[in-house]
This record gives sequence, structure tokens and C-alpha cells, in this order.
Amino acid sequence: MITEIPDTTSEKKSNLLNKYLYTRKLSEKICASLKTEDYVVQPITDVSPPKWHLGHTTWFFETFILLKEKNYRVFHEKYSFIFNSYYETVGQRVVRADRGNLSRPTVEEIYEYRRYVDKHIRELLDDRYDIDGELQYLLEVGINHEQQHQELLITDIKYILGHNPLYPEYSLCNGLSDSPETPEMKFIEIEGGVYQIGHSGNDFCYDNEVRNHKVHIDNFEIANRVISNREYLEFILDGGYEDFNHWLAEGWDWINGYQIKSPLYWQLIDGIWCEYTLKGLEELKMDAPVTHISFFEADAYATWKKMRLPTEFEWEAACKKIQPENNNVLFLESECFHPDFRGSDPQFLGNVWEWTSSAYLPYPGFEKASGALGEYNGKFMVNQKVLRGGSVASPFHHIRTTYRNFFQPHLRWQFTGIRLAK
Amino acid sequence: MITEIPDTTSEKKSNLLNKYLYTRKLSEKICASLKTEDYVVQPITDVSPPKWHLGHTTWFFETFILLKEKNYRVFHEKYSFIFNSYYETVGQRVVRADRGNLSRPTVEEIYEYRRYVDKHIRELLDDRYDIDGELQYLLEVGINHEQQHQELLITDIKYILGHNPLYPEYSLCNGLSDSPETPEMKFIEIEGGVYQIGHSGNDFCYDNEVRNHKVHIDNFEIANRVISNREYLEFILDGGYEDFNHWLAEGWDWINGYQIKSPLYWQLIDGIWCEYTLKGLEELKMDAPVTHISFFEADAYATWKKMRLPTEFEWEAACKKIQPENNNVLFLESECFHPDFRGSDPQFLGNVWEWTSSAYLPYPGFEKASGALGEYNGKFMVNQKVLRGGSVASPFHHIRTTYRNFFQPHLRWQFTGIRLAK
Amino acid sequence: MITEIPDTTSEKKSNLLNKYLYTRKLSEKICASLKTEDYVVQPITDVSPPKWHLGHTTWFFETFILLKEKNYRVFHEKYSFIFNSYYETVGQRVVRADRGNLSRPTVEEIYEYRRYVDKHIRELLDDRYDIDGELQYLLEVGINHEQQHQELLITDIKYILGHNPLYPEYSLCNGLSDSPETPEMKFIEIEGGVYQIGHSGNDFCYDNEVRNHKVHIDNFEIANRVISNREYLEFILDGGYEDFNHWLAEGWDWINGYQIKSPLYWQLIDGIWCEYTLKGLEELKMDAPVTHISFFEADAYATWKKMRLPTEFEWEAACKKIQPENNNVLFLESECFHPDFRGSDPQFLGNVWEWTSSAYLPYPGFEKASGALGEYNGKFMVNQKVLRGGSVASPFHHIRTTYRNFFQPHLRWQFTGIRLAK
Amino acid sequence: MITEIPDTTSEKKSNLLNKYLYTRKLSEKICASLKTEDYVVQPITDVSPPKWHLGHTTWFFETFILLKEKNYRVFHEKYSFIFNSYYETVGQRVVRADRGNLSRPTVEEIYEYRRYVDKHIRELLDDRYDIDGELQYLLEVGINHEQQHQELLITDIKYILGHNPLYPEYSLCNGLSDSPETPEMKFIEIEGGVYQIGHSGNDFCYDNEVRNHKVHIDNFEIANRVISNREYLEFILDGGYEDFNHWLAEGWDWINGYQIKSPLYWQLIDGIWCEYTLKGLEELKMDAPVTHISFFEADAYATWKKMRLPTEFEWEAACKKIQPENNNVLFLESECFHPDFRGSDPQFLGNVWEWTSSAYLPYPGFEKASGALGEYNGKFMVNQKVLRGGSVASPFHHIRTTYRNFFQPHLRWQFTGIRLAK
Repeated sequence: MITEIPDTTSEKKSNLLNKYLYTRKLSEKICASLKTEDYVVQPITDVSPPKWHLGHTTWFFETFILLKEKNYRVFHEKYSFIFNSYYETVGQRVVRADRGNLSRPTVEEIYEYRRYVDKHIRELLDDRYDIDGELQYLLEVGINHEQQHQELLITDIKYILGHNPLYPEYSLCNGLSDSPETPEMKFIEIEGGVYQIGHSGNDFCYDNEVRNHKVHIDNFEIANRVISNREYLEFILDGGYEDFNHWLAEGWDWINGYQIKSPLYWQLIDGIWCEYTLKGLEELKMDAPVTHISFFEADAYATWKKMRLPTEFEWEAACKKIQPENNNVLFLESECFHPDFRGSDPQFLGNVWEWTSSAYLPYPGFEKASGALGEYNGKFMVNQKVLRGGSVASPFHHIRTTYRNFFQPHLRWQFTGIRLAK
Repeated sequence: MITEIPDTTSEKKSNLLNKYLYTRKLSEKICASLKTEDYVVQPITDVSPPKWHLGHTTWFFETFILLKEKNYRVFHEKYSFIFNSYYETVGQRVVRADRGNLSRPTVEEIYEYRRYVDKHIRELLDDRYDIDGELQYLLEVGINHEQQHQELLITDIKYILGHNPLYPEYSLCNGLSDSPETPEMKFIEIEGGVYQIGHSGNDFCYDNEVRNHKVHIDNFEIANRVISNREYLEFILDGGYEDFNHWLAEGWDWINGYQIKSPLYWQLIDGIWCEYTLKGLEELKMDAPVTHISFFEADAYATWKKMRLPTEFEWEAACKKIQPENNNVLFLESECFHPDFRGSDPQFLGNVWEWTSSAYLPYPGFEKASGALGEYNGKFMVNQKVLRGGSVASPFHHIRTTYRNFFQPHLRWQFTGIRLAK
Repeated sequence: MITEIPDTTSEKKSNLLNKYLYTRKLSEKICASLKTEDYVVQPITDVSPPKWHLGHTTWFFETFILLKEKNYRVFHEKYSFIFNSYYETVGQRVVRADRGNLSRPTVEEIYEYRRYVDKHIRELLDDRYDIDGELQYLLEVGINHEQQHQELLITDIKYILGHNPLYPEYSLCNGLSDSPETPEMKFIEIEGGVYQIGHSGNDFCYDNEVRNHKVHIDNFEIANRVISNREYLEFILDGGYEDFNHWLAEGWDWINGYQIKSPLYWQLIDGIWCEYTLKGLEELKMDAPVTHISFFEADAYATWKKMRLPTEFEWEAACKKIQPENNNVLFLESECFHPDFRGSDPQFLGNVWEWTSSAYLPYPGFEKASGALGEYNGKFMVNQKVLRGGSVASPFHHIRTTYRNFFQPHLRWQFTGIRLAK
Repeated sequence: MITEIPDTTSEKKSNLLNKYLYTRKLSEKICASLKTEDYVVQPITDVSPPKWHLGHTTWFFETFILLKEKNYRVFHEKYSFIFNSYYETVGQRVVRADRGNLSRPTVEEIYEYRRYVDKHIRELLDDRYDIDGELQYLLEVGINHEQQHQELLITDIKYILGHNPLYPEYSLCNGLSDSPETPEMKFIEIEGGVYQIGHSGNDFCYDNEVRNHKVHIDNFEIANRVISNREYLEFILDGGYEDFNHWLAEGWDWINGYQIKSPLYWQLIDGIWCEYTLKGLEELKMDAPVTHISFFEADAYATWKKMRLPTEFEWEAACKKIQPENNNVLFLESECFHPDFRGSDPQFLGNVWEWTSSAYLPYPGFEKASGALGEYNGKFMVNQKVLRGGSVASPFHHIRTTYRNFFQPHLRWQFTGIRLAK
């Protein structure tokens, strides 16, 4: 959402094109070490096949930018049916749960599709003396959209490999072997009052972050870091998953219905707690942030600690006050692929997404865009919880202090974690 | 939740006893015209058999008050298994969906159970020179609990009779034949600022209404009345249920999955819209509030009107400013059993529950009570929406300006309606 | 199915009327000790509410006999919708699983319906000088149909009471206290050859029993009695439910999916095996036939014993040879309501239905009747197993040597048992 | 099942090895034109990924033959978990519905697995001076097992490609373009009496075909050919799918529950009936056998024609009398991959599997083998129907006059068809 249109000089054009090409390459780099077979499967509905992500992000540029050009010829007529995700405006589509049932188009055909669309986007920019605000906006949306799918590529690949009985390795990340110690837990006091919440300024953000508005917050304290595996294991060993008192009623039904006893990638093997990370199945590292937990688990942990999760407003207020100048160590670009406790300053951005107690609701004055892009955010504003801060799977340039991520409270295949408040 | 304990004189005792006896009688009065068979069935999980409500409210007094008395002898050892609703603290219970599979205890046995418990509550109060705050609190909770089940008795009876192919009549209410006209729709402007929200004072309220706290609200406008059947029918005739643009994604899936095309009790018979009310199946009255709609439908209607639902904070702020001195015409005591537009002043209390856009979340500083009663509210604070104001099925003395009702967004067997804001 | 039409004298008329009235009374006698609430519930889809049985059997006579009379006025226009079971020919009907969701018509209204139809049937017979073969046939079908529902009434009442946490008693049967000992198990040799199977003669039988035809059977041996609780318990104690080797693949999935560990009404309480009979929940009697088992369990037991179940042809050939002149001790009329080992002669009729290894298939030359009654048997001839012999819940006059009962292999709420062959 | 052990000379050894190697190659030839992605997906539970078939058949030889050799080293320890299908005896395994969720082992790794096992089988035979009956039997079972999976490979590939929105082509078969006309329908009279049914002789057959026994059959007539698309279309156009009178009750529920209106691969596109064959989506050929229909549809068609399906005994008796010397035109080796009406003589073998009216039950004296191979057939003998004759996807050497195939009555992804009897 660009509220003021800046100059569109050739420098701007080349900047945008560079950003575009960088993003497109990064997606392919993420998949570079996959076997063809890894691109195809969909073990649960929430996880899409990597080849689908590569096609869908390409379809997004084709549909919302290239198809509006007079002379553009669509790459394949049936691809819109295959690669549309949830845009009712754009028409019929493959049922989400069936994405993993499609052997065709092949991986090679999808890479061809990517080259075709990239060539036309490049030509489109070359042909124009200037780019207007609409085109700039659509390119920015497309780039940010593909960045979101880069995070999903990583978490979906992790699910695919981590649920295979052979537990294959995705990546050799040395970052993890440093094994930093867990910093001491401290609570930072923040004074109550009326705060400005939400995005302001001219740079890109999503429609769910505007408009900047006032929220009254009471005095509160917030933790300097997220919860570690060691701390979470105490909760398990204290019978946390067996005592209904800690759980929301829906959460209690969920852990009992699915027999949930620990975070998603934990396994107790011959009495030793192990965790699948993208390096393979290995012994659980106590000095690392707990991750891949649902909101229900985060909330139960906080209740057991006789504390609570912060609201998204508290989180944003604290982040704006405390967060040091961004470092990108714990974003996607680090190629670390697993959270750790590097650095002792309070860090709100990167590492793990932090569940807040806030429901995902429109800010005052929220207006959804017209057309298909109006389906981007607004229609999901019920029965989801807000997460803040980004993770080791988020591209560095994608995350902002005001960024609102959202998932249903039982989902946990993302890199999610817990920060306490009181 | 009593924050200060007032004097407990014999007048207080007799007031409490009268309130107790009045409430207990009212539940039985609601069932007086039922056939024995009507007490037994449970057509959907959300609807409980009337005999279960009569037993469960009795079990509540027995379990939380009488069982703490030394000499009390439980009426029947198995009844706790049968009449416990969701209190994990109290132990095992019949699965909710199985309540309608139990032919025993019989209706007569449950009335006997009620007489037994009433006798012991009366003796308990007679025996005491004074009643302490704890006992008073528990009695107040028990009475308010039974008032909630009175509302459920009416909506569950309506579901049972209204889904029977014979469409039997429950009650002859003359109120409806007056057929008041729909008042003109006006929007009332409310100035923004920091408002005090939540309960204050010493009288009874639930733990989810405390504590009184500050909320910043922007300027807004709110409608003087709820939406009528005539207005809602326009939405249907305009293809409202066929256009995804009006709907939240979950709502769109819900109406398509269940083939929902109109409010719960509407039927199109030979080209004429009819509605089952507790008087039977009759032609739809255009000059009456639309009711028995889900949050999804309320939200879609508002979106179609290019407006929105109020937040629960806006609603409370407006109600505190505008609501005239309470009248009880459109509460349960009116024995009207269907909403109408009686009176031209803006009415926020009674008639239909009004869906707000707010998720059901704890107020700042919320603390759940210890023991079983801590399970009353807090554990439901996820994936539900707040409703405000009470309905024609709510007992007059049960509802307050700060009262927070909550249901999942797809439920609609309660008397729910729509008030717009912008 | 009457293949030759006998004389229809007034004696025949009065015999038929007596049979009709006797049957109609017997159904009501079965229900005489029920509470109103017991008539209403449907704890599983297979079990229908007793009031539905009383209405459905009445609807059968009304629909197939009275409605063909010029001057007959239907009792209630909506009853056909409510009481049609599965006759597509006759039109729309309440979904089977919803029978227990209907509080109306009330029990009293259904008894009124019965009286109304009985009165008209009586008048119909009085008015006619003679009755033709068609009318006689329809009356016979209606009477036999009601007899089948008498058996279902007993098994459905047992399910309703036996799955209530209060375990109420239905009947005081002294027969059971005699506690006859289990006779010694012997195997009777039957010589192979071509046998005549199926009904012959002019008296009533169902279309699935005709026509009498030749079947080649090899030499075989068949047990003189059914398996006892003591014998079945040995199977359990030997780990029968934990060893896949004994089970058909579908049976293995069924016991694991539903966590089945014993016959339907058995419970292990504080280390003691108990069984709910219609006398209440009591200690398991070892010297009684095992009952309420599925085909899967019967087949697994036989496999464990290194034997097998007889085919329906072997059973019929053996029964025709061995069965002593019928005695009615172990039919419904005995009011015993639970199988036992009374009598030492080989008994094939009464006591428990005996699962055969035969699939329920049409006999050669099978032709279904035209019209609605053609839906009686033929359309169920897939995925069901044949049972033979009748049970303590079958009316004495209903059962024949050639009678073919049929149920899906996982069902076990009928009085079913095991006879071995080899 | 080898009842007598023949000489085992080196010729026999080399014959067996040739048969083994031929079979192993054929499986790979079937997959030769697949893309890597086609090997991976599992669109429905019944369809397995081609790479799973290639691994599973290899695991079968490894588990039942090589693992019994002292010096054999298992290829990969986890493969038994991945490639076991349903052998409880052999231990834990991947849930069937999850086969398509496994990207690893890769296709290349599975081909390596095949080469490894083939090498060891070859060495095993080379090392032995002689092969004993047990080894010969196990090799025969393994070869026949792989032949069955060759048929499944073809039908599963067809399902995978035929349910992809791009409708890719598998094979260019010229056979289909010949377009032979449908021969005239004639009925052949067969005299009743006692027939010998089942396998006799020393060559390989499955345990469900022995032992040869006597069955009495009445006089009957059987069609000289199977039903054509033109004939089946008449049934559709006559409202066959809308009239409950033609359908078994379970079949009626099935077509309504799944909205079934035509055979599996038929589509009505712009008013023209099309069919997906392995050549792609093309206009329906009227002069070809109808195929990919369920037993329910076959039975409904026969009922509509006022005829019936043959029993498996009638079918076998007729086949033994009429079938001309086998020709292999319409088996897998023809590489035709779709049935047609080539040849005018009555053909019972090849082309399409023919649904019989018989339930899949043990023959008299059936004994399942001990050990894991005892799980091959016997445990499926409930709720399935027998099919006879083989299809264009069956290897020629796999099918016999006495061969009994079996599927649940609603399944239709195999090449199934209809032969009438009366």
C-alpha cells in the first residue's frame, strides 16, 4: 500500500528490477538442493508442494501484471486453474488438498514458466520510459508475496523431509554448532498510555498494517527473550500436557484429539529427546528457542508460568522502544534455518514468530483493496491469532516492526515461539 | 464476582432465597407446556434436552453448595456423571453429543431431584443465622447460571419444535400480532477518546466483565436500531449468499459447505418466505428484526451495506450514553418469545443479541477464579465473538450494559441480530 | 409369497383377523413397561426409537392396505414422511439417523394412530364377504413385518437401557435363574450330496426363501449346540482380540478402530466380567450362550478353534435332518429375553441367531415383487451375511427352517451367536 | 500353490530365472515413459505411487526369499517399513494413505534397490546346484505377485494422468484406431448339472482357486460378449442413474453420495461424451466395451435389462466350454491399454474383468498358508465380489480360467466390464 507516489526515474526502475530478480533467484536457490521428488508431495493440506509455490508466485506476476498487457500471450491456458491459490475473483482452481496429487506440470516445465515470465517482466520494464505508481505497487506486492512464499517453501520443505521415515538433511548450517548459551531472562517495564500503532510513512506495507491509530495500553512488563527448549521441557516434565487447568478448552480438545505431547518436531527416542531440524534428526539442544508450537501450547505454557502472552499492541510498543538497529543474523539470509540465542541484546525481530494474545482483526478504518488483491488479507480476519517479529525463515527485507502475521491457533509448522508478558 | 461484601441481614437472606425460588420456578414455568417427549431429544450437539437443563442447573447448586455441607446426602450417585457439563475439575461426564441418548433419569425423577435440592437449599438458609460472602457469591453464581440456562431452554425448545416436520406451537404470544412498524434507520455520532470499559461497583457480574479499564476509541457512528427482515431479504434478493466478496473466507466455506441460503428458521415455500417462530410456521413478517443469523451472515450483511459491525467497546460506550432507562418489554419476562420493533427510542438491551466485531478475549488484568468455577469463562477465550445486549429469551435481571456473551461465529440458534456502525 | 391361493372362507377371515390382532397387541405388550422417555431416544443409527417402530408398523398397514380403499381417510398427512423406513417408491422420508430427534408425534398420539388403523382393518375385513389372495397376502406380509419389528423392539430397548449409565431393568425373567449347565459339545456328521434348499409349499414365506433349488454340499460335521460364554472367554483370555491371525482384514480394522475387546454387553468391572441383560447389569453367567457378537467375532472364534462357520446350506440341510419338533421355549413368547441352554437335544431354532459363512445373495431364479414390496429384501443383497434359526427375541410363528435373516458383518445388537462346523 | 513337486533340473532353473528377469523388466518397461513426478503421487488411497509398486515388489522378493539366506545384507533397514503393504506378520508399515507423501527414497534409489535385489536373486540361483520346491514356490509367488502389480501400475498410472487437469498421454496405441464393430449380442445356452469348479493340476495357482470341487448349477444362458459403450449410454439416457428401482440399496446411496452419473473416465463436455483413455481425452467410442464401472453399476445395468450377472461358477463353466484357445491380443502384452471388440468368437479371457454376482468366499476345504503368505488372499474374503477373466492390463501368463480376482463393489479404477446372463 503506497500512499504517496514517489519519483519514478530510471534508477528506481533498475532498483525495482534488481529487487525483482533478486527475489526470483532466491526462491530457486531455496530449492536448489531438492530432489525432483521433493518438489511434488503434500503430506498435509497446509503444506504445499515446492513446485506449486514456484508456479503460484509466477502465476501471481503473470495474472496481476502481464495479463493486463495487450500483447502478452499466456504461457499455458490451464495454469491459472492449477496455480491460483484462493482468489475467487480470478476463477476456478484445484482444490487445495489436491495440490500434491498433480504430477504435471513437471518441475522442469515450471522452471520454464518462471523463465518465460521473468523475461516478460524484464521486457516490460525495459519498454517503458517510466513506471507508474500502479505498476510499481503491483511489482512490490508481487515481490512481497513471493517473499512470503519463500518462508513457506522452507517450512513446507521441513515438513516434507521431517515427516519422511528416512529423515533426510536439507542443509548444512554451521550457525547452529556455535551453540550460544541462553541469556538470563529479564522483564522490561513499559509505561502505559496511549500509543500509536500501525504503519506510517511511504514505503511498502500490507493493507492490514494501516492505518496508524491510537491504542490505550496499561503498564506492563515484557521478557527480553523467547522461551528456550530447556524451559519448555520443564513444562512437559511437570505434566503440562496432562493438566487441563493450563489449557483453553479448544486447546485441551486439540491435544487430546491428536494425542499431542510435545512440539511438532520433537521425538522421545529411547529416553532421549530428539528434534528434527533441517540438518536431520539429532539430540534436542537445550540452549535454543523452543519452536514449532501452536498458540494453544504457547498460551498453556504462559498460564503454567502464571504469566501471559503480550497483546500485539504491547509487542509493537515494546519493539519500537527496545529493538536495536536491525541485524539480519536470524533471518532467511543467514542460511541458518533454525533459531538460536545469538546476541544478548533484547531482539524482537527474526528468530521465531511470536504468538500474541491478540485476535487478527481489522484496524480502525481498514479498507480492503478493490479487485482480487482485496482478497489478500481482509477475508481471513476471523478465528486467527496475530504473530509478530518474523523468523529465521523470513527474508530480512520482508519484515517490519508493524508487520502482522496470522495463523489459526492450532497450526505449528511455522517457526513459532513464546515471549512472555505480565 | 463480589468485590466488597455487604451486610448479611435476615432481609438479605430472604431476598436471596426469594431470588433463588423465583429463578427455580421460572425454569419450570418455561417447560410447563412441553410434552414429556419434548424434554428428551437433542437434534444437534449444541442443543441440549430440556430435562438435561433442569437437571444440570440443579446439579450445579448441589455440587458447588450442598456437597460442601457435612450432613448433605447426595440425591443420586450417578447424577454427577450425567449432569456435569464441562467441569473437568469435577470429573468424568457423559459426552455432550450423547445427552439426547439418555431416556433415564425420567422427567419425573428430575423434577423430584429439583424438589430435593430446593428443600435443602431452603433449609441451609433457614439454619444459618447469617450467610457469609462465599455462600452469597455461590448462590448468586448459581442463580445467574440458571438464568443463562433459561435462555438456552427457550432456544433449544425452539430448535426441537422448529425442526420437527409437524412444526408444533410452543406458546401463544399476542405481542407479535401488534406488528409495530420498523422505525426509520438513523446513525448516532459518538465522539472518540479514552472510555472506561467493563463493570464497576459491588453488584454481581461475571469475571469476564472485570476489571474496568481504559480503551481508546475513534469517532464513530452507530445505528439506532437493528436490521429488519425486510432489509435482510434485500441482501438475499441481491444475491448476497452467492457473492464471495461480502464474506470472510471461513464464512464463504461455511455457507457453501452447509448450503446456507437464509437465516436459520426461514423457508421458501411455494414462493413465499415463511419463518418458524414459537407460534408455529407462518409467513415472514417484514417489520420485525432479522434473527437467528451467524456472525458470518451479520458481517457479510454489513460488508454488503459498505458498513461494519461495532466493536464491543463502541457498543458499550454507545449503550452507556444512549440507552434509556431499562424497560423489560423485550426480555424473557414479556413472554413474547420473538423480537419486534416496539418503541421508537434507541434500544440496546433486549430483543436480539447483537454480534460485535470483537473477538472474545480477556480484559487486561483478567484472573480466573480458582477451582471449578474458574472454568466458567476464561477457557473459552479463543475463536469466539462477543455479543452484547441480551434478547427476548434473556431474563431481565440477568443482563447488564457490560454483559459479554460469546459464541462461535457460525452458530445461530440463539436470538441473534445485526446493528450497524461506520 | 403365496404361490397358490387357498379357499377364503369366513373361518379364514376370522383366523387372519385374530392373527392380526394378536400381533398388534404383542407389540404393545412389549412396550408396556417402558417409561415415556424410553420410547423416544435413538442412541445409534441402527437402533430406532420404540415409538417409531409402533408408528412404522402401523403406517405399513395403512399404506399398503388401507390407502387403496376408496373411502379411507389418512390419519395424518405428515405421518408418511415420518414413518416410512426405506421405501423409495413411497416417497420422501425422515433421514434414518434423525428418528431420535423427533419429540412429536407423542407416544399417546402414536397409540391413537394404532387404534385408528386397527379399527379400519377390522372394518375392512367385516365389510367383505370374502377376502382375495392379494389382501390376504398383504395382511400376511404386514403381520410378518410387524413380527420382525417385535424382535427389533426388544433389541433396541435393550440397547437403549443397556447403554444408559443407570442400567435400568426391563423385565423380570425367572427363566434365567434356572441356570442349566452347558451340554457337552458334539459334532454331528452329515453326508454330502445334492440337497434341496429353500421354501416349498403354500404357506407364507419371504421372496428371498424361494425358489426351492438344488445345492451340492460336501460331507461335513456340525456342532450340536452354540458356543457358551465360558468358551468365548477362553478366546479372550488367550489374546484372541490381539492376534491378527484369527481375523479377516476388515474385522481387524474394525476391532482396532472401535477398540473392541469383548461382546457388546460385556464389561470388566473391578476384575469381574459382567453382562447387561434385560434384567440389569450382573455377573457374567458362564453356562449361557455367548451373544451379541459380530460376524467378524464369530469368524475369528472359529478360526482360532481351527474350525469354521457352516454355510447357510449346510445349516439348513442339518436343521431339516436333526431339529426335533419345534418347541417354543426359547422364542419371544417365553418372555425369557436371554438365551440359555435349556434342553439337551440339538436345537437349531430359537435361542440365538447363528452367523453362517454365506453371503446374502439371491437364490437362482429370484424375482423381486413389483411395487414398493419389491424393496423388501432384494435391494439388500450385497455386503451382508446370512443368519439362521431365530432367537429369544423372535416370535415363534415367525421363524422357519428356511428363514434367511441378514445383517452387515460388524453389527451385533441382535441376539447373535456361534455354531461351529468342520 | 504347488501340489506336486516336479523335477528341478538346470533347465528348470534357467526357465525360472528367465521368467523372473522377464517379469522384472516388464515392470520397468511399463514405467519407461513416465516423468519422475508421475512416480510419486497418490491421488486416492486405492492408487499407489508407481515408485511404491516398484519398491514393494522388490521388497517382496527380498523379504520372503533373500532375507532367509545367511549372508544376505538388507539393502536399507528402513525399506521394510516403507514397502510392506499389509503383512501384519512382517511388522509395522507406512499407513497406506501416506504412500504419496513420501518423496524419499527417490525413483533412482528405488531402481538401485531393484538392481541390488535382482543381482542377489541371480546369484542365489547360480549358487545352487538345484532348487527345492520351497524356493521354486516362493519365486513363482513373487513373480505372480509382481504380475498383479503390473496391472495395478497401469491402472494407477491411468488414474494419476487421467485426473490431472492437463490430461497427459501415456502411450500411443494404434490398436484402438482399428475401431472394430461391436459383434451382435447372442446368448449361449448351458445345460445345468453338477460341475467341477476350481483349479486342478500341478502348475501354479493361488490358494483361493483350490481345491477343485463340485457345484450344482441350473440351466442358464450367458452372453457371447461384454456390453458396449453404446449400450451403456442407452442406460444413462434412459435415466438409469436416477431410478432407484435398478439399484441395490448400497449402490443407490453410493451414486447419490458421490454424485456418480457415468463410468469413471467419462465426461460430458459441451454436450459431447468424452472418455480419458491412456491416449488422452477423446470422444467416446461407441464400439468399445464399457469399462471402469463398479459392481453396483454392472448390477444396475443388468437389472435394467431385466437380466442378471452370472455367478462365478456359471462363468467358469461357460468359459471352460466355450473359450477358444487363448489368444493374447487383449492382454497387457498387446500394449493396447484399452479394451475393444477384436475378434468375433466368444472371448472370456482378457479385455475387461467381468463382475460376477458371487461374493468372494472360500472354496470348501480352503486352508490359508502358514506365515506371512497366508495373508495373501484369505483375510479379504468378506464384502468383496469376484471378477473373472483378466483385462488388457493383465499379463497374459498371469490369467487362468479358474483365476479369481476380487474387489469391493464400489471400486472401478480397474478395467472392469459387464457380461450378462439369464
